[in-house]
Amino acid sequence: MGASTVLVDGRARDTIGIGDRGLAFGDGVFRTIAVRAGRPLNLRWHLRRLASDCAALGLPVPGEALLAGEIAQVAPGDGVVKVILTRGDSTRGYAPVPGAAPTRIVAGFPPVRHEASRARDGVAVRRCSLTLSEQPRLAGVKSLNRLENVLARAEWDDVSIAEGLLGDPRGHVVEGVVSNVFVVKDQRVRTPELTRCGVIGAQRERVRELLGAAGVECSEADIGWDELEAADEVFLTNSLIDAWPVARLGSRTWPVGPVTRRVQAMIAQDDARD
Amino acid sequence: MGASTVLVDGRARDTIGIGDRGLAFGDGVFRTIAVRAGRPLNLRWHLRRLASDCAALGLPVPGEALLAGEIAQVAPGDGVVKVILTRGDSTRGYAPVPGAAPTRIVAGFPPVRHEASRARDGVAVRRCSLTLSEQPRLAGVKSLNRLENVLARAEWDDVSIAEGLLGDPRGHVVEGVVSNVFVVKDQRVRTPELTRCGVIGAQRERVRELLGAAGVECSEADIGWDELEAADEVFLTNSLIDAWPVARLGSRTWPVGPVTRRVQAMIAQDDARD
Repeated sequence: MGASTVLVDGRARDTIGIGDRGLAFGDGVFRTIAVRAGRPLNLRWHLRRLASDCAALGLPVPGEALLAGEIAQVAPGDGVVKVILTRGDSTRGYAPVPGAAPTRIVAGFPPVRHEASRARDGVAVRRCSLTLSEQPRLAGVKSLNRLENVLARAEWDDVSIAEGLLGDPRGHVVEGVVSNVFVVKDQRVRTPELTRCGVIGAQRERVRELLGAAGVECSEADIGWDELEAADEVFLTNSLIDAWPVARLGSRTWPVGPVTRRVQAMIAQDDARD
Repeated sequence: MGASTVLVDGRARDTIGIGDRGLAFGDGVFRTIAVRAGRPLNLRWHLRRLASDCAALGLPVPGEALLAGEIAQVAPGDGVVKVILTRGDSTRGYAPVPGAAPTRIVAGFPPVRHEASRARDGVAVRRCSLTLSEQPRLAGVKSLNRLENVLARAEWDDVSIAEGLLGDPRGHVVEGVVSNVFVVKDQRVRTPELTRCGVIGAQRERVRELLGAAGVECSEADIGWDELEAADEVFLTNSLIDAWPVARLGSRTWPVGPVTRRVQAMIAQDDARD
């Protein structure tokens, strides 16, 4: 995987036991955090989402100071940090053992470099044929159960396609394989409601917050594929790409719009201030 | 986890790298195999199901002789062997790397001892409140994405309840948390069709095969909760419990029936002959 530095439960180590529930059942959560000049970006939303995801699975949440310290330790300069929290050992089968020690993995990686054209000119995306399943108990949670994303990402190898969009069985667009989706129509911004499937990204939450603070309406809603196509602007967010304009989906093309540009600027400003 | 012996890719080792896709995404499959006097039971169906599950995920299947040899190595006497196959390293994110080396984990454990009364007198089960999600692409596959089972198993800690039954959103019973379900009505045996959710167990497949060979009708079907309650007999199967009669679900009780007894005898006979 090429991690520069890895801490497992605070100790320098890059392996876990084969009995860990993270491997056995995908029983855990993770976050991917961009670090610039030793400073994790948007850490407040990463920590909030970690806490929320841990609550959904009944996992203990590590202290913020502890996590921030370990992130600083594994990524002292520019880079990416992956945090994985699992329910620890799988001695008792599926049944969680109350009070059992969880596993905390904090791994630093070199920065991911994307072509500048993606943020500037936008990206081409495709609609995946895989349809997400609906599980309200896990909706929104960035858990280690990500086989749907793996199968969806395996659908294409055309390097000109930057992302695949995933839908639910009801005909709504839900998310990208590695990103959240926003649509803009008549100055109003909407992003899919993620209460039945999908992953709530830290970047998604920050963008909603920043738009709200700027007085731009941004609501969660069910969004049909036809509404996506009819949008004035579409953009994708995650913690490593910030916000990419969608320039093309099949035969539909979009110019980069003003709201997308504004969101990009808001993210950059917040990163500088954070 | 207390594994006696573990082989990772054929080498004695009980850890995997934190970048393994089995941990990162649950991108892999597993089987749990009972071993008696150094002989893995029902290996033919375990191997068939492994091959089928690997095909569903696009994973390479290890050779049968290789696997059988490693199973013999980690469980020379009585015990349980867990085989985990993952897609290997997660360097490229969700995108599978064609031809990349998978990870093969073969781990031996001491035998699991259940009270003899469970097979003899039957067990009490409960209906879980968690509803399984429907994903035809993963239905039947014993993948490492098992958070639904974890959440369902966390619903009860009453030790008098041996198993929880899970349903789908359409009102059918699908499986137990760790077992497959069979219902008997008027001498006809049925087991839930697992094309939208659920895990196809090796023991389930063997029982279907043995019943068929004995001229007992056994079909896959959608089975409503009311049909379950109306059944003459209900039994549960997996590779470690063989077949347990269901004696109670809520206020409904069942005596142990003749078809369940016959299935238990068939399994024992097949294990002896295998």
